[in-house]
Amino acid sequence: MADTKKMVDEITSMEEDFAQWYTDIVRKAELISYTSVKGCMVIRPYGYAIWENMQKILDTAFKKTGHENVCMPMFIPESLLQKEKDHVEGFAPEVAWITHGGNEKLEERLCVRPTSETLFCEHYANIIQSYRDLPKLYNQWVSVVRWEKTTRPFLRSREFLWQEGHTIHATAKEAIEETERMLHVYADFCRDALAIPVVEGRKTESDKFAGAEATYAIEALMHDGKALQAGTSHYFGDGFARAFDIQFADKENKKAYPHQTSWGVTTRLIGAVIMTHGDNNGLVLPPAIAPVQVVILPIAAHKPGVLEKANELKEKIAEIARVKLDDSEQSAGWKFAEYEMKGVPLRLEIGPRDIENNSCVLVRRDNREKQVVSLDKLNEVIPQLLQEIHDSLYQKALENRANRTYPCTSLEEIVQVLSEKGDGFIEAMWCGEEACEDKVKEVTGVSSRCIPFEQKTLSDTCVCCGKPAKHLVYWGKAY
Amino acid sequence: MADTKKMVDEITSMEEDFAQWYTDIVRKAELISYTSVKGCMVIRPYGYAIWENMQKILDTAFKKTGHENVCMPMFIPESLLQKEKDHVEGFAPEVAWITHGGNEKLEERLCVRPTSETLFCEHYANIIQSYRDLPKLYNQWVSVVRWEKTTRPFLRSREFLWQEGHTIHATAKEAIEETERMLHVYADFCRDALAIPVVEGRKTESDKFAGAEATYAIEALMHDGKALQAGTSHYFGDGFARAFDIQFADKENKKAYPHQTSWGVTTRLIGAVIMTHGDNNGLVLPPAIAPVQVVILPIAAHKPGVLEKANELKEKIAEIARVKLDDSEQSAGWKFAEYEMKGVPLRLEIGPRDIENNSCVLVRRDNREKQVVSLDKLNEVIPQLLQEIHDSLYQKALENRANRTYPCTSLEEIVQVLSEKGDGFIEAMWCGEEACEDKVKEVTGVSSRCIPFEQKTLSDTCVCCGKPAKHLVYWGKAY
Repeated sequence: MADTKKMVDEITSMEEDFAQWYTDIVRKAELISYTSVKGCMVIRPYGYAIWENMQKILDTAFKKTGHENVCMPMFIPESLLQKEKDHVEGFAPEVAWITHGGNEKLEERLCVRPTSETLFCEHYANIIQSYRDLPKLYNQWVSVVRWEKTTRPFLRSREFLWQEGHTIHATAKEAIEETERMLHVYADFCRDALAIPVVEGRKTESDKFAGAEATYAIEALMHDGKALQAGTSHYFGDGFARAFDIQFADKENKKAYPHQTSWGVTTRLIGAVIMTHGDNNGLVLPPAIAPVQVVILPIAAHKPGVLEKANELKEKIAEIARVKLDDSEQSAGWKFAEYEMKGVPLRLEIGPRDIENNSCVLVRRDNREKQVVSLDKLNEVIPQLLQEIHDSLYQKALENRANRTYPCTSLEEIVQVLSEKGDGFIEAMWCGEEACEDKVKEVTGVSSRCIPFEQKTLSDTCVCCGKPAKHLVYWGKAY
Repeated sequence: MADTKKMVDEITSMEEDFAQWYTDIVRKAELISYTSVKGCMVIRPYGYAIWENMQKILDTAFKKTGHENVCMPMFIPESLLQKEKDHVEGFAPEVAWITHGGNEKLEERLCVRPTSETLFCEHYANIIQSYRDLPKLYNQWVSVVRWEKTTRPFLRSREFLWQEGHTIHATAKEAIEETERMLHVYADFCRDALAIPVVEGRKTESDKFAGAEATYAIEALMHDGKALQAGTSHYFGDGFARAFDIQFADKENKKAYPHQTSWGVTTRLIGAVIMTHGDNNGLVLPPAIAPVQVVILPIAAHKPGVLEKANELKEKIAEIARVKLDDSEQSAGWKFAEYEMKGVPLRLEIGPRDIENNSCVLVRRDNREKQVVSLDKLNEVIPQLLQEIHDSLYQKALENRANRTYPCTSLEEIVQVLSEKGDGFIEAMWCGEEACEDKVKEVTGVSSRCIPFEQKTLSDTCVCCGKPAKHLVYWGKAY
């Protein structure tokens, strides 16, 4: 498709068909390509570079909080997966099974890891003897496999890339602190790197991770008013330790069970970025994770001095930003559309007249604002503009969320709001009973997203049964 | 095991049992841990940090030579694997097969990638139309699976980490240049980062990668005189392009088949480092890949001012090297042994008397040389010492190889040399016939390692049949 290159008008508009708009961007911005492996995808260089930028920022944050990277096997023997009862019930129906190595049938089936708690537990049991061995703060960057029925690029695929943190602590208190700490790391990352505001909260009992005592999550609201779970952090108590017989000698030399956590974010975050910031011209990337932050487009590049100047600017800007010079023979119009599609935060145009004036034109991707900037001030102005772009993306996302968050005090109100205003976050009080949670979903179509840490009181009674309310809950339709 | 910590005398000496010495180091330096998944291992933080350092250096070299990272699925449908005849014959007997997703039997079996040529080819066919789309220079950092019968940590495991480069070019010439370029990148990396000298050469026909027209390799010689293939680079011609129907319109708008390469190095390089530089006290790490380059050990740490000074030095050294301060309560003797085991290049001892003299003691891991260094000169001296350590490791490895490389002109001589001097590289002339290659192995036990780029003439005739010789060949026993 490279020489019959896509044009802007080929994208479905998000108002017409949001799902198709999403798929169009994912393909036309060259983030992924489909394969003959159903539900799996090729992550192409531009998509993978976004993931690498996310990895770098997160990995630094993990190391700053004392975590070390490791690498577990990708296979789990069936008997190991079965050791923790809730865990195997949750995952066994959706794992891929290896039955043969070469021409030989295996004595025991292996699954491809859907998550690695069981492998970490086996390892902990090998290496932990004493309180001096605790805590262990581990992380790994790998891919995992879950045999999903319906798949969508980044949002739900059979194989996806992620990081999974796994930690083990002497006390419940420490483990709970870790669970919350890492949720905050994710929330900060979403705000500071992805320009995505998230709600931090706890999942209800019915929505917990298989084997967890508590699951925390960050929830973001997409352009279309649907909620996206952007990261989770689990507290396991000592349930896994008991199932895997992990014990340590405490300071009094008494045997005790340690407490565990795990937490993860995935390539799904790329989907979140697309659906939070993208527009009908394509991707809009927050500068922190944009593979190219500034693209230089020479105007009338055949005129003497233009390419030289463009190259000179590239060298200079490379000191402060990720910069690309496109001196290909494609038309200016084609290039404008191409880099809008790819969501490059800043476009720099430089032509003969600009050079005469010792200036260039900078155009923001997010709002198309143009400004003429002196070439001597570029390395001051560009970082400021990138910061402004980030701030303004975040502000816009925050406003979108505020405009689409609806406090409701009855099921009828929820139904009415959703039908009048479309999807969004519903804030409503809840008694804590699963029956009410189910009924809200049945009657209104929205499910509980999380019990936010920041509580407030809309009314004293459950939106469903009218009994005393225990929590404010965010509800929504979820990706 | 952490509180009943291993002592130095627990390592088997390499003279007594080289294989056991290797296994002892791998476990006692905490590089890996065994798992219940046969043939797979946990790479522990210290081992993984070595791999991360290797990755960073190689990834920079790949990006400098124009390569982009991507990510292919980990599964290959059976029908896709079968498209290239030689390739499937080479790999089908050693792949792991997925037959079920959850409780459902798959319509078509999938294998876990043993290597990803077939996936890249499918992708190329989707995205390449014109000469303008060429070349594509891709790489991915992933793990692959080969169902080996006998396994050893890092050297041969069922799952291993690697990078696989895959490129596609308009002409054979370009592709061959790429194949050789990347082999040189590997050789430079081994010399400059791992302090390992390698022989660059071409594999014989019988030893080629399945589906390749030519396979190039770097071969290193271990402490025990056995050869280790440390990296390979393959030229595919247009064989895969024909099998997968990848065609492009050239400048005259005629259809043509492009030419491909692939190249890879693996976590096996960690094994190469152990067996090239390690000694009877444990690991010896080249500074470029050492997770900790300088370990600070406070002496009489309870005395006033010692810990403060140690912390101050740590801050200062952190500007120029990867530094760790061990202020735990373990004895000095324990710590000396521990960091020797872990191969930390430099140990810095600082105690009350040193502080009085405004100096400290630096001890090299490789030769145990001590020197007293003024605290004011530390950040000059440390980089120099790290460089000296690197150079001296390389020099020693070079000498070991020279001492164990034996030019031979008859099969009898090969047999005699091996029985008198033990394993090593045998240099001997070869006619190019597979029958002779087989016979050399049968009679002497050494197999062809490579046809080195740097040729010389030991005699005019084949070491085996006496007919005219075509090549000098390196022979050896291989890991």
